[in-house]
Amino acid sequence: MSFQEGDFVLIVAGDRKYLRRLTKDFSLNFKDKLLKLEHVLGKSAGQEVNGFCLLKPTLEDLILLGFERKTQIVYPKDSFYVAFKLGLSSQSRLLEFGVGSGASTAVFSSLAGEVWAYEVRQDFCKLAKKNWDKFGLCQNVRLENVDFKEAQVEEDFFDCAFVDVKDPAPYMEKVWRALKSGATFASLMPTANQVAQLLKVMEPLFCAVEVLEVLHRGYKANPERLRPQDTMVAHTGYLVFARKRT
Amino acid sequence: MSFQEGDFVLIVAGDRKYLRRLTKDFSLNFKDKLLKLEHVLGKSAGQEVNGFCLLKPTLEDLILLGFERKTQIVYPKDSFYVAFKLGLSSQSRLLEFGVGSGASTAVFSSLAGEVWAYEVRQDFCKLAKKNWDKFGLCQNVRLENVDFKEAQVEEDFFDCAFVDVKDPAPYMEKVWRALKSGATFASLMPTANQVAQLLKVMEPLFCAVEVLEVLHRGYKANPERLRPQDTMVAHTGYLVFARKRT
Amino acid sequence: MSFQEGDFVLIVAGDRKYLRRLTKDFSLNFKDKLLKLEHVLGKSAGQEVNGFCLLKPTLEDLILLGFERKTQIVYPKDSFYVAFKLGLSSQSRLLEFGVGSGASTAVFSSLAGEVWAYEVRQDFCKLAKKNWDKFGLCQNVRLENVDFKEAQVEEDFFDCAFVDVKDPAPYMEKVWRALKSGATFASLMPTANQVAQLLKVMEPLFCAVEVLEVLHRGYKANPERLRPQDTMVAHTGYLVFARKRT
Amino acid sequence: MSFQEGDFVLIVAGDRKYLRRLTKDFSLNFKDKLLKLEHVLGKSAGQEVNGFCLLKPTLEDLILLGFERKTQIVYPKDSFYVAFKLGLSSQSRLLEFGVGSGASTAVFSSLAGEVWAYEVRQDFCKLAKKNWDKFGLCQNVRLENVDFKEAQVEEDFFDCAFVDVKDPAPYMEKVWRALKSGATFASLMPTANQVAQLLKVMEPLFCAVEVLEVLHRGYKANPERLRPQDTMVAHTGYLVFARKRT
Repeated sequence: MSFQEGDFVLIVAGDRKYLRRLTKDFSLNFKDKLLKLEHVLGKSAGQEVNGFCLLKPTLEDLILLGFERKTQIVYPKDSFYVAFKLGLSSQSRLLEFGVGSGASTAVFSSLAGEVWAYEVRQDFCKLAKKNWDKFGLCQNVRLENVDFKEAQVEEDFFDCAFVDVKDPAPYMEKVWRALKSGATFASLMPTANQVAQLLKVMEPLFCAVEVLEVLHRGYKANPERLRPQDTMVAHTGYLVFARKRT
Repeated sequence: MSFQEGDFVLIVAGDRKYLRRLTKDFSLNFKDKLLKLEHVLGKSAGQEVNGFCLLKPTLEDLILLGFERKTQIVYPKDSFYVAFKLGLSSQSRLLEFGVGSGASTAVFSSLAGEVWAYEVRQDFCKLAKKNWDKFGLCQNVRLENVDFKEAQVEEDFFDCAFVDVKDPAPYMEKVWRALKSGATFASLMPTANQVAQLLKVMEPLFCAVEVLEVLHRGYKANPERLRPQDTMVAHTGYLVFARKRT
Repeated sequence: MSFQEGDFVLIVAGDRKYLRRLTKDFSLNFKDKLLKLEHVLGKSAGQEVNGFCLLKPTLEDLILLGFERKTQIVYPKDSFYVAFKLGLSSQSRLLEFGVGSGASTAVFSSLAGEVWAYEVRQDFCKLAKKNWDKFGLCQNVRLENVDFKEAQVEEDFFDCAFVDVKDPAPYMEKVWRALKSGATFASLMPTANQVAQLLKVMEPLFCAVEVLEVLHRGYKANPERLRPQDTMVAHTGYLVFARKRT
Repeated sequence: MSFQEGDFVLIVAGDRKYLRRLTKDFSLNFKDKLLKLEHVLGKSAGQEVNGFCLLKPTLEDLILLGFERKTQIVYPKDSFYVAFKLGLSSQSRLLEFGVGSGASTAVFSSLAGEVWAYEVRQDFCKLAKKNWDKFGLCQNVRLENVDFKEAQVEEDFFDCAFVDVKDPAPYMEKVWRALKSGATFASLMPTANQVAQLLKVMEPLFCAVEVLEVLHRGYKANPERLRPQDTMVAHTGYLVFARKRT
């Protein structure tokens, strides 16, 4: 592929990464070097131009560098793992609430057949739509601006569910009813108190309950001085996984 | 779905999980309870029978509980993340070597369009095939019993590559040539020395190089006594990611 | 120093360590090698004899290899850090309960002026005394076989306190009264629930409250294949630190 | 104790900590509150005044908040553990180089009988002295402004050694000779390459070699919302421990 006006391009300069759209007024400065639209148009992905490497962004690049956010997003380190734990495939119908900035939905949507997404806050619904539309993502997502408590959903309808709200415990009975027997369930919560409360509610309804944290430890990629980064993201949330029991 | 003879079933009993095939002589003991074939046939996924919860296994269950292994496999915690970092989709043609027990291939194959897999050891080729065939996986995988050094591959052919061999450095120039410009690359290595050597070789050929470790910290899912597990897997390998530069 | 009959010796053979007393019937087998009393007597610390390296044990060696235990001990990774956080010196009078196998007391006693130790279980008192006497430790420790709830202690008496009981929350008011104003406080607890309960009780009584975990990640010390150990101790307990506020 | 002019005081305000000297012009603002010298003089440690809690600083407070630094210091999380691994006591004669800002020396000096410290850079020698003198620390330290390579030291002289220089490998034979047989050794290094090189040199000279990292994971001390801090210090250095073999 070669880059055209309107495309998104991931630009690597030294150890920095930039996600940019190739608009008429595109230009990028890094140290004393300049990259302009004319340098990029018609170039192939992977080409190095004037010290800049031009790449097609991955979904992770879009989320980390291109998604606008109002609160903390679900990080790819977490959502990539959740996607597989949920067993998502083109046959899966996924229930998700709350959607927030739409970062996790974008990941799940890339694997699932369809996603039914609920978000109580109107500003988040708009933000998520904006993020998805910008990159042409989530065309199999049906987003509704309603608290899942109020949502009209059939029973035994979903193959899997992902819940990311402040206090998931009060939703669990409704989630349970909406899921098919044996369905996969996942939730992300920042505090240990929430996990303890959720586990209490889940005990009679779910089996195969697991709790874990995903930690990524990055390194400085210097072959002569290989060492971990000085600081790391130490916490995004606790992940809870389970299967609906009947 | 309801369980039939020949199906694989994931059985949860207390905090233990078993992956079993429903053959004529199937039976499972846990503590003082017994589960027999007649208890399972015709039951729905998710149903609890005699204290056993019956589930359809996920890909992770198949790999962790059902794959036979001769050496350490690539753990799902790593391969799930790699799958997304590689940007796998139904359009992707993936290069993978060495295959080992076929655990990572099974993950990548579920997302990629096609996988071209190379494994120098014949016993590993047989083992991988056996693991895949047992569960009907990897039908889009073309496995060849040859060292990738000797493999006949076109240039600019692959969208992405995953390398899991003892010493990847000497392969890197050939990998580079086999990849399309801008293609994604990932490798898993157990030692820091290997990472340092690989980084040295990659520097002139790749950009956007990242090194990281994925750590999962499990918890005891007890709402009254929430706490991390006493021990954890502290190391499987260092992951190196990059993009082909031209 | 040279080893005499009756001494404790730390013997390193390959990557194994043994703590042994030099009694008349001492002997040690490792692979096909034999170490006998006559090989060790009169040798200097550090000497290598027949492939065995003979060393004077450190306090950590005594605790990890020589202390008998009925329950989990406080690991040196935790107690070494606590000792400094408490600001122990020869001027410090430390309050400690419960004592358990006496492992943390042995560490604190090596720095503090005096330790007043309380343990409700008689079998633990005996075990701790046995461990200390075996190695001549803890001569500045005054151990009482009583629940700290029942202990007769003066107010404003201690410079620092370490608490390691199942449920520290109900003890905190008495601990607070027994401490001098500004005194240092530390506690170790296995579960997040205990931490949350303790923090609630501490809020009006203490300041400078900190919660943290100490994690040690070990490596295989092979210069050609440097890599983390496969597994690690992932949890011993949460540490809570604070200062008495008046 | 009660605070006098000239004293150092640790002031806790909300979740912030300040280390300040009580000079004539002392004052501290936190949010809309003001603390002045007259509020502090004569108050006892631990007293709360106007929302500020007044405390006697621990050694950790002095190092983290009071030591001036030009490069990264040895963090207490590391030096506290090293101090015990070295088996420091009032009988120990410790060899240390390079000293840097003097943070580790301050910790070791509080336990060891005497410390012989070597630092090649004159500006570091001055800085370390300044840090120690400010708080009246390290009176048992004999600091020399020389590369340890050039230092005149007796053989079989030291009970223990701590080495914190960029490339410790070339020093190891001299360190070995300066140590008594069986002596304890520790070193801190930021990169995996240095560790690999050091291990190679140590193999014929030392036994009981261990490599590990100390990681501290902090929590937000909120009883209703207990959770790890968002970020953590992910790397200070690899620690190598060993015993001199003869």
